[in-house]
Amino acid sequence: MIYFAPMSIKKIGILGGGQLGRMLLQAAANYPVETFVMEKDAHSPAAHLCHHFTKGDITNFDDVYNFGKHLDAITIEIENVNDEALEKLELEGIKIYPTPAALKIIKNKILQKQFYKENEIPSSAFLITQNLAELNNLQHFLPAVHKLAMGGYDGRGVQILKTKEDLAKGFDAPSILEKMVVIKKEIAVIIAVSSAGEHAMYPAVDMVFDQRLNLLEYQLSPAAIPEKVLWKIEAIATKLVKNLNSPGIFAVEFFVDKDDNVFVNETAPRVHNSGHHTIEGNYSSQFDMLWRVMLGYPLGCTEAILPAAIVNLLGAEGFTGKACYEGLQEIMKLENVFIHIYGKKETKPGRKMGHITILSNEKQELIHQANRIKNTLKVVAYTP
Amino acid sequence: MIYFAPMSIKKIGILGGGQLGRMLLQAAANYPVETFVMEKDAHSPAAHLCHHFTKGDITNFDDVYNFGKHLDAITIEIENVNDEALEKLELEGIKIYPTPAALKIIKNKILQKQFYKENEIPSSAFLITQNLAELNNLQHFLPAVHKLAMGGYDGRGVQILKTKEDLAKGFDAPSILEKMVVIKKEIAVIIAVSSAGEHAMYPAVDMVFDQRLNLLEYQLSPAAIPEKVLWKIEAIATKLVKNLNSPGIFAVEFFVDKDDNVFVNETAPRVHNSGHHTIEGNYSSQFDMLWRVMLGYPLGCTEAILPAAIVNLLGAEGFTGKACYEGLQEIMKLENVFIHIYGKKETKPGRKMGHITILSNEKQELIHQANRIKNTLKVVAYTP
Repeated sequence: MIYFAPMSIKKIGILGGGQLGRMLLQAAANYPVETFVMEKDAHSPAAHLCHHFTKGDITNFDDVYNFGKHLDAITIEIENVNDEALEKLELEGIKIYPTPAALKIIKNKILQKQFYKENEIPSSAFLITQNLAELNNLQHFLPAVHKLAMGGYDGRGVQILKTKEDLAKGFDAPSILEKMVVIKKEIAVIIAVSSAGEHAMYPAVDMVFDQRLNLLEYQLSPAAIPEKVLWKIEAIATKLVKNLNSPGIFAVEFFVDKDDNVFVNETAPRVHNSGHHTIEGNYSSQFDMLWRVMLGYPLGCTEAILPAAIVNLLGAEGFTGKACYEGLQEIMKLENVFIHIYGKKETKPGRKMGHITILSNEKQELIHQANRIKNTLKVVAYTP
Repeated sequence: MIYFAPMSIKKIGILGGGQLGRMLLQAAANYPVETFVMEKDAHSPAAHLCHHFTKGDITNFDDVYNFGKHLDAITIEIENVNDEALEKLELEGIKIYPTPAALKIIKNKILQKQFYKENEIPSSAFLITQNLAELNNLQHFLPAVHKLAMGGYDGRGVQILKTKEDLAKGFDAPSILEKMVVIKKEIAVIIAVSSAGEHAMYPAVDMVFDQRLNLLEYQLSPAAIPEKVLWKIEAIATKLVKNLNSPGIFAVEFFVDKDDNVFVNETAPRVHNSGHHTIEGNYSSQFDMLWRVMLGYPLGCTEAILPAAIVNLLGAEGFTGKACYEGLQEIMKLENVFIHIYGKKETKPGRKMGHITILSNEKQELIHQANRIKNTLKVVAYTP
């Protein structure tokens, strides 16, 4: 009789129960793993897809510590978690993806910008402001973007300051004031880092904005950028995660200016909206990849199966209440389209309610279908 | 203010909590739906992936009826469920996929064969036997296959009878005796039927057997068969589901003989092992498709994104106990390979523990990787 080492089933927890957790748990069901989620709302998108759900506050020390102390590993769905508890858990031997040290740098925009500067990672020029009084002395630095150091998310905690009069819109709390970059393109890359320090990068994504509304229109992968720009982006992203020195999945967002200079806009130390197309479009999705990292498996293949686009499905302006997906049936008739509805019961303006992925070898077809989806599908509320 | 019809969230139940339920629930998380599972074992592969788990016996009238009476719809993971309860539920307005009438025909091999005969669906010649005494008079019909009318599954309830001496191995219960067909190929197709009666068929699958061991080696899609044979298969499968007159997903398995005659071997009225490659290989997977049918959405696109193969991962002979996946790390390094481990804690010889999908434009690459996986990956048990 040959004796084999046991394959113990790892217990892995996710802090946060939103759509990122939901898609992580869809991918988890391909592997032998015992899953845990902590989240305030027991009806959140991920709550029913794990083995063990805990109602709790991910920003509370005791809640996070008690959730994590019996687990093998923890990952996050959002940066705004209690990192002191994660640090204590890490000291006690629980693996944290990303490491609390990397998380602390990224979740504070002042530390994040200082990290770029210290590591010679190109990023826009910036000044630190502790309060409004300090900001008012920096008129010479305008036009600029004022960003709260802590707690900003999905456009909140960000103000564009163009003129002296705009200074009053700034934040009276620790913030950074970033020199405005004239942007030609916004590009994102997802990069995976294994516990052994190996890297795997996905093809770059073109984030296409509606210039008038400053709203993300859709994302295309691979990005249409010159090879030299791509090389810069890949080199910078690799350097960035090397210096962060943490396993996990990282999304790095870049600005490209008219002279093809490349600047890091920001980094997320987790699975990210700009990688959702990898579920259908790439051999190993960003969600699959994070499980590979956490379970100690080899990194997956980041290559594209087909070029992809995604359209985010946001709650329409003017509607708050029980979600209703107008036009969904029409979109579901499209042959090369994949639906992801996150199962949130309530919609409100701008809330991320789902996304749609399109696969095609033809870039024009991707753009055509993306526009069709944007013009057809609308998340409204039922008004009784 | 415009008023929209509410999109009520449907409550849909699955009878059975195995790997088919698991993959159904992975796909369900793309849509707004409230999911329910009933199964004896609270640690079964699908138990933790639904909104509401009920511990119960799917063959028990009361358990099935009580589980179903507050749902909008029910589907099955296995034929061996209490169909009287489903009939009562159907009368009370709950939608059942497949209909209890179709299920009753298929789950009883005598009725299934009579259905083929009455509807002029080509299938091997057969006789009905009620007991061993009747069987013993049918020596002239050998070589033949004796199949129990009720309860056979995954090779159980089937005996090959070649000689007079073999007759003693037959079943002393209602059975069919099928004339042996000399098989050149075994082909399967998955076909979806909407509530409105629309059909969508997936590309045919070649089930490649190890002739020596009579074990499924791997499955290839699309099948390498002459167009004329494919046409016959498509026409027969379409006629079959038309006459079953039930919405749902159906897997139809065919024998092809040396003269390219086509015979239906058997039909399953549910998602099926021969369609697992559709998760990654086709635009709409068989699991996605069943949700589309049950939620009243348009049928999905059955076209292949890339040709695919799957290898079933069965518990190795000689090992019973806590499952351990020998060689998994090596297989996970392959770039075009997708892992599906069903999360069963215990392995035993022949138990379906997972499957591996391979995508490639090159048939030789699919076969090469399938063989590599078969030779590398082994589900054994940890023996302490």
